[in-house]
Amino acid sequence: MADKAGRRMRFEQVYAKVAEDLVKEMRKEGIPEEVLAWYQQNLDYNVPGGKLNRGMSVVDTVEILKRRPLVEEEYVRAAVLGWCIELLQAYFLVSDDIMDTSITRRGHPCWYRKPEVGMIAINDSFMLSSAIYRLLKAYFKKETYYVDLLELFLETTWQTEIGQLIDLITAPEEVNLSKFSLERHSLIVIWKTAFYSFYLPVACAMHICGIPHTPIPLIDSTDPPKDPYDIAKSILLPLGEYFQVQDDYLDFSGTPEQIGKIGTDIIDNKCSWCINTALLHASPAQRHILDEHYGKKPSGGESELKIKAVFDEIGIREKYAAYEEDVVRLIRGRIAKVPEAEQENTLRGEVFESFLSKIYKRRK
Amino acid sequence: MADKAGRRMRFEQVYAKVAEDLVKEMRKEGIPEEVLAWYQQNLDYNVPGGKLNRGMSVVDTVEILKRRPLVEEEYVRAAVLGWCIELLQAYFLVSDDIMDTSITRRGHPCWYRKPEVGMIAINDSFMLSSAIYRLLKAYFKKETYYVDLLELFLETTWQTEIGQLIDLITAPEEVNLSKFSLERHSLIVIWKTAFYSFYLPVACAMHICGIPHTPIPLIDSTDPPKDPYDIAKSILLPLGEYFQVQDDYLDFSGTPEQIGKIGTDIIDNKCSWCINTALLHASPAQRHILDEHYGKKPSGGESELKIKAVFDEIGIREKYAAYEEDVVRLIRGRIAKVPEAEQENTLRGEVFESFLSKIYKRRK
Ligand SMILES: [Mg+2]
Ligand SMILES: [Mg+2]
Ligand SMILES: [Mg+2]
Ligand SMILES: [Mg+2]
Ligand SMILES: [Mg+2]
Ligand SMILES: [Mg+2]
Repeated sequence: MADKAGRRMRFEQVYAKVAEDLVKEMRKEGIPEEVLAWYQQNLDYNVPGGKLNRGMSVVDTVEILKRRPLVEEEYVRAAVLGWCIELLQAYFLVSDDIMDTSITRRGHPCWYRKPEVGMIAINDSFMLSSAIYRLLKAYFKKETYYVDLLELFLETTWQTEIGQLIDLITAPEEVNLSKFSLERHSLIVIWKTAFYSFYLPVACAMHICGIPHTPIPLIDSTDPPKDPYDIAKSILLPLGEYFQVQDDYLDFSGTPEQIGKIGTDIIDNKCSWCINTALLHASPAQRHILDEHYGKKPSGGESELKIKAVFDEIGIREKYAAYEEDVVRLIRGRIAKVPEAEQENTLRGEVFESFLSKIYKRRK
Repeated sequence: MADKAGRRMRFEQVYAKVAEDLVKEMRKEGIPEEVLAWYQQNLDYNVPGGKLNRGMSVVDTVEILKRRPLVEEEYVRAAVLGWCIELLQAYFLVSDDIMDTSITRRGHPCWYRKPEVGMIAINDSFMLSSAIYRLLKAYFKKETYYVDLLELFLETTWQTEIGQLIDLITAPEEVNLSKFSLERHSLIVIWKTAFYSFYLPVACAMHICGIPHTPIPLIDSTDPPKDPYDIAKSILLPLGEYFQVQDDYLDFSGTPEQIGKIGTDIIDNKCSWCINTALLHASPAQRHILDEHYGKKPSGGESELKIKAVFDEIGIREKYAAYEEDVVRLIRGRIAKVPEAEQENTLRGEVFESFLSKIYKRRK
C-alpha cells in the first residue's frame, strides 16, 4: 500500500465508514429516510472528490511522529481526523462557490447550482461543519486531548472565516487595485489558507500522538524553550504562504499542459501574488495599464495579454525565483532548529521536510 | 432593576462588552481596522435587536436555580451565555433569510439585502457562530464544565441544522401538501426551534450552576432515577413544541392589533400546525380547496379567504383549545415529578413553571 493510488484508496475506505457513522447516528434519532438521503448526497458530492492532500497528510505526519507504520486502529483514527479536515474544507468550498458565483468545482457543477439544491446549499455547508464535531465526539471523547481537538477545529474555522472576510472585502466585484498590497495578500493567504491547510493537519497529528503543549528547547538557539505547537506554526504558516504564492505564480506562468487548467486569476480580479508584486514595482505608465486592464474578461483577450506583458516587463519570473529562494532559506533555517529526540511521539524536523519536499520547485 | 425594561437594559450592557471583547481579540491578531469595522457592523446589525427572550432566560433560570439574586460576576457570566444563544440565533436568522429570500427582519432590511453585503452574509453568519466559541473560551475555559458547554452548543447547532433541512425539504417553493403531516410538523418544530430556544438556555444555566449529569429520583414515580438534563429535555421539548403550535395558531387567528403583524403562514405555504390539522380532518371536497388555494398570494386575497373558511369549517379554533389543554396537562404532570431539594444549585420545578406561565394562553 505504499504507492500513491493505494494510499488514497485506503484513506477513501475510511470515508465510507465515516459517512455511514454520520447517517446512522441521524437515523437513530428518527430522522426520515428522505432527509438522510439528502444528507448522504451532500456528503458524497462535496467531501471526497478533491486531491485529499490535507486529509492524507494527517496520516503521513502521524507515521513520521511515531517512527513506524500504524496499526489498523491508529490508521483509522488518524484518517478520521484527516476526513474532519476534508469536511472543514468542503464547508468552506460549498459556501465560497455561492459567494463567488462559481459555476464548476472539481469538474462538476457546484453543489448550489444543482436545481434541486439552490440556497439549501447554505444549510448543507453548515451540516458539513457540524459533522466534524459529531466525529470528534464519536472517536475521541474519552481522550485527554479531546478538548484540544475541539478548540483546534473551532479556532481554525474562525481563522479561515476571518481570511475569507478579508478576501471578500479586499477583492469585491468592482476592480479597485488600490485595495491590494503584498501585505494584504500575505494576510489573506495566511488566514484563509495556511492555518487550515498546513498547520491544522500537523497539529491534529501531534495531538493524537500525545504531544503536550510543554515547551521544548530549540537547537543552537538562545531563544527560550518553545511550545511545540508554536514551533510547528512558525514553520507551517510561511510554508502555507509559499504554497499559495507558488499557486498564484503557476496560474500566471504555467502552461495548460503543465498545470492542467487555464489560469484565470488575472481576468477574475484575484488578489494574487503576481499583481501585488507588479503593483509594488510598476512605473506610473505600467500602473495605468494595470488599472485599466486587470480583472477584464475574456480569457486570452487583449486586456489579459496587456497585463501579462506588464508582468513580464517588471520581471515577475525573476522576482518569483528570488522570493522562492528567500522563503525556502527561511523555512529550512527554522526546520534546522527543531530538536530531534530518540523516542517516538516527539516532534521532529522530518515532518516539515516532508511538506517542503512536496512543494519545493513544483511545476504543477 | 426588577422591571422588564430595566432587566433588558442590564442584559444589553453585557452585549456591549461581549462585542468589544470579540473585536479586541481580532485587533490583537493584526486584522485591519476596515475588517474589524465590518465585523462590528455584522454583530451590531444582527445580534442585539430581537426580543432577547432566549438569552435573558439564562439569567432568569440561574436565579431560580440559585434561589437568590446574582452577584455582578455571576450575572455577567450568565448573560454571556445568554448572548451566545442570541449569537446562535443570529447565525440561523441571517442564513435563513437568504434561503427564504426574505425581505425584512425585525423591521429592517435583511442583512444580505444591504447592497454592500449580498452573499458575504453567508460568511458573516459563520462568524456569528464562531463568536460563540471565542466567548466560551474567554469566559469558561478554566471551568470543569467547559467541555460540556462546547458540546452543548455544538450539538444544539447540529440539531437546529437538521431541523432546517427537514423544513427546507418539506416546504420547498412549489406547494405540495402531500409532504405535510402533523408528525412532520412536530419533527420540524422540535429540531428547528425547541432545542435551541427552550432546552439550550436551561441547560446553559444548569451547567454554570454546577449541576452534574448524575441521575436523580423523580417524585411519585416507579421510573429509575434520571439525568437532570434529560428531565429538563422531557419538559422543555414539548413546551417548545407547544410554543410553536401557539405561534402558528396566532398567525391564523390573531388580529393585527393583537399580534402586531399580519399573519402570512397561509400565503407563504408554511408547514404550520393549522394546515396540518386541517389536512388530518378534511373531507375530499375540503382537501381539494386546500390543495388549490394554499400558498397563494396576495395577503387577504380570495385564496387565503377560502383556506380560512375551510379552517373554520373544520373547527381549528376548538381543536387548538383541546390541544392546548392536553399538552399543558402533560407538561404540568412532568413538572410535578421534578424533585425539589433544599439546597441551592439543584434542579426544581419552578424553572419550568416560569417558562410555562409566560406561554400559557398567551394572546400575542
Ligand atoms: Mg472561490
Ligand atoms: Mg472566494
Ligand atoms: Mg490559484
Ligand atoms: Mg425564514
Ligand atoms: Mg426558513
Ligand atoms: Mg409564525
